[in-house]
Amino acid sequence: MEAQRRFITQLRVRYAETDQMRVVYHANYFVWMEIGRVEMLRSLGFNYKDLEETDGLVLAVIEANCKYLRAARYDEEITIETAVVASTSRVVEFSYDISSAASHKPVAKGSTRHMWLNREWKPTHLPEKYLSIIKPRK
Amino acid sequence: MEAQRRFITQLRVRYAETDQMRVVYHANYFVWMEIGRVEMLRSLGFNYKDLEETDGLVLAVIEANCKYLRAARYDEEITIETAVVASTSRVVEFSYDISSAASHKPVAKGSTRHMWLNREWKPTHLPEKYLSIIKPRK
Amino acid sequence: MEAQRRFITQLRVRYAETDQMRVVYHANYFVWMEIGRVEMLRSLGFNYKDLEETDGLVLAVIEANCKYLRAARYDEEITIETAVVASTSRVVEFSYDISSAASHKPVAKGSTRHMWLNREWKPTHLPEKYLSIIKPRK
Amino acid sequence: MEAQRRFITQLRVRYAETDQMRVVYHANYFVWMEIGRVEMLRSLGFNYKDLEETDGLVLAVIEANCKYLRAARYDEEITIETAVVASTSRVVEFSYDISSAASHKPVAKGSTRHMWLNREWKPTHLPEKYLSIIKPRK
Repeated sequence: MEAQRRFITQLRVRYAETDQMRVVYHANYFVWMEIGRVEMLRSLGFNYKDLEETDGLVLAVIEANCKYLRAARYDEEITIETAVVASTSRVVEFSYDISSAASHKPVAKGSTRHMWLNREWKPTHLPEKYLSIIKPRK
Repeated sequence: MEAQRRFITQLRVRYAETDQMRVVYHANYFVWMEIGRVEMLRSLGFNYKDLEETDGLVLAVIEANCKYLRAARYDEEITIETAVVASTSRVVEFSYDISSAASHKPVAKGSTRHMWLNREWKPTHLPEKYLSIIKPRK
Repeated sequence: MEAQRRFITQLRVRYAETDQMRVVYHANYFVWMEIGRVEMLRSLGFNYKDLEETDGLVLAVIEANCKYLRAARYDEEITIETAVVASTSRVVEFSYDISSAASHKPVAKGSTRHMWLNREWKPTHLPEKYLSIIKPRK
Repeated sequence: MEAQRRFITQLRVRYAETDQMRVVYHANYFVWMEIGRVEMLRSLGFNYKDLEETDGLVLAVIEANCKYLRAARYDEEITIETAVVASTSRVVEFSYDISSAASHKPVAKGSTRHMWLNREWKPTHLPEKYLSIIKPRK
């Protein structure tokens, strides 16, 4: 169970993600965080696509933060460790530890806060069946 | 009238658009072409946003081509000259001449073909009121 | 002089910047913040491109934050108000107020912190001639 | 050997890659093509990163084309089948068949042409050791 509270996903840096500083453009780390949390949700047994399409639930970002520790470079394999930091029926917060898969050196630390919205973009409550799954790690 | 057949728009290269070759990443030229055709439509008196929201018309891309002639660089001012090459009630084709605003040197030449779709993503006919406006240049 | 401490720039939301929630994808706000600070630097009399190429100075992002207040939508005109919050020879911090150009309603509030690096990616000092220009607003 | 002439790679559609039409934004297919050709080169025994850094060779895109057959959607698993269509010491051409991994239905067909450039961005010849590897499929 505890293992589900932290989720590891990996990706390889795309050429398109670099900029002329020869490192990953800083906004792209937020794309990686999204991959981390979507894959975490998938590992918990449901996928975000169904959540949007079947349940009409939208996980809108209300805050996003990133500290950049070491520049990631083209073709590097990257590990994203995602954790649920807080979760109520209204708000979820994730944290992300982004590191080099080869050296384990930290690349960035980030966090995002989200509100659950319904199809009309109004704040809503996450149904209990999901809330019991998306629990913060101890 | 003839002036409406060719439309000029300008933009400045964003840092985010560069890659580690220190030039604009090649896929971004297609984003610029879209800016060119949206601004051309606006200059013709209607905007693409309303077309989608009010008329339920979607201008889906069915083909896109680009020849890269000279690399565009960060902070450079770019001119996009858009023209309608062909237009029926079902299909529209645009061409784009992308050049340096300062030197007028060509940067790229592109084209896109599009189908008009309805809200159900089925091919549809562009209403006559619009068709008479989106005419190919002679 | 005080007017230079806050800088206004505008842009129009691109189709490429939206996602399937029909709003601007959240990572793209960080691209807009970069446009805001680059244009602010330009208004202060020097451009970031020259800084990189002539002076060998790189303004590396070390932290980026954004609070999302209201979703921006395709084709909307957006105002970015950039301010220097703190500036030493080593570190600069900018704040950004992003709003709808038409309604003036707030869209997002962000901030970024940066370190000055040299060509070898080592922390360096910003030359005095620039430091006297990049001053925080009172 | 023949197997090396066609190379299969897979990816999952990212949320960031969608637009408000609720499908993958058309420019992103060119990012996928790049992933296809980079992974193909890797499978042939060398990687593009080393080519740029060690050999000072840049594979500059001179032409890119895509026909869009069926819209790809968020979270869909995508197969990219890359092949070398033509290869001389100066120019390489790749083709790409992009399809749904689950249904095998075609999504798009693309091609890109490239020139080998040296560190000074002048056309150069690909060394024989590489040329003998990057051969077109029969």
